Amino acid sequence: MELQVLLLRRIFFFFLLTILQQSSSARILTISKPDRHDYAASARWLVSQNSWGVLSTLSVDHEGAPFGNVVSFSDGLPEKGSGIPYFYLTALDPTARNALKDQRASLAISESPVGTCKRDPMNPTCSKLTLTGKLLILDEGSEEAEVAKKALFTKHPEMIDWPEDHDFRFFKLEIIDIFLINWYGGAKPITVDEYLHAKSIKVVSFL
Amino acid sequence: MELQVLLLRRIFFFFLLTILQQSSSARILTISKPDRHDYAASARWLVSQNSWGVLSTLSVDHEGAPFGNVVSFSDGLPEKGSGIPYFYLTALDPTARNALKDQRASLAISESPVGTCKRDPMNPTCSKLTLTGKLLILDEGSEEAEVAKKALFTKHPEMIDWPEDHDFRFFKLEIIDIFLINWYGGAKPITVDEYLHAKSIKVVSFL
Repeated sequence: MELQVLLLRRIFFFFLLTILQQSSSARILTISKPDRHDYAASARWLVSQNSWGVLSTLSVDHEGAPFGNVVSFSDGLPEKGSGIPYFYLTALDPTARNALKDQRASLAISESPVGTCKRDPMNPTCSKLTLTGKLLILDEGSEEAEVAKKALFTKHPEMIDWPEDHDFRFFKLEIIDIFLINWYGGAKPITVDEYLHAKSIKVVSFL
Repeated sequence: MELQVLLLRRIFFFFLLTILQQSSSARILTISKPDRHDYAASARWLVSQNSWGVLSTLSVDHEGAPFGNVVSFSDGLPEKGSGIPYFYLTALDPTARNALKDQRASLAISESPVGTCKRDPMNPTCSKLTLTGKLLILDEGSEEAEVAKKALFTKHPEMIDWPEDHDFRFFKLEIIDIFLINWYGGAKPITVDEYLHAKSIKVVSFL
């Protein structure tokens, strides 16, 4: 009987730990959402929390039609992002080919994958962001290519082992315009300068 | 001691049930993923399982730059989709305005939100799909507008109560080209006809 109690206790605490770990990670995400009135912080938070988005370019194959493509990105180390999205692309994929012909591009991301949104992904209280600008290839070995490499390989460690013969290269989106919805009332007024120089993210708790 | 054993047993079985419920729902999702060699079924499955994606149009405000926007969509009732994505858009938002000027558009979606992908969202084994075509507004009261309404309001019940003065209208993407990655080896060969007439989805278990 003594042994049974001991065994059951151990199993119980293992499960308790599992449950606590799960609820704790969900709580951290919820707390870190910035004040919705701080548009720059809201946009920067969305970029730092998301690991993938849709990068749109003008299709070479389809006479300039807009071509959205699911891509991984990173703007820096966790909590230390610059707001500039970096990508690791190969010309075997249409997006890089399109950008080398016409640099115009946009990156769209949603609050939905972050897990802090309780409503429909298109409800204005579920934040969404589109950064429009130029998709530029970075010079190999340049300082910024090193920044991009560190940002991407930290957030997406799998990339380190992607095949060398695919000739992956580092790209960045030079932002020209910002479209942010993070509450009712249409797109929020936010300049690229405000976005890039956002103060440290204020946090509020919804719990 | 007897009581302690009984109590611990009860708590243990409660946690076991919780864990089993969670893994069981994950298992159902995994099982429903089609055979990766069936490209049409794979693409249709991605469309049916996702509730949102990024719809790209040519920006009126930014001289024809590609503008991706997070939107909710539906291709029909669960397991009864047509493969045609329908949208509920307002001209208060740039995407609808852009489409009314130039119909060229694409919808990009990822396997990532479905929850069946264990690797990086850009790893080729994580499926992604881009449907390129024309974003068309549906005539109010038409048969297809009713189909769109039923498809959207079933998958996104919140839409029923979206504000009337925003003048939301039903749109569809008339598909011209399909870009599917669902394994290594680049984009898969798949025609619009194969996609629209996909046989019922074959299911395989990875467990």
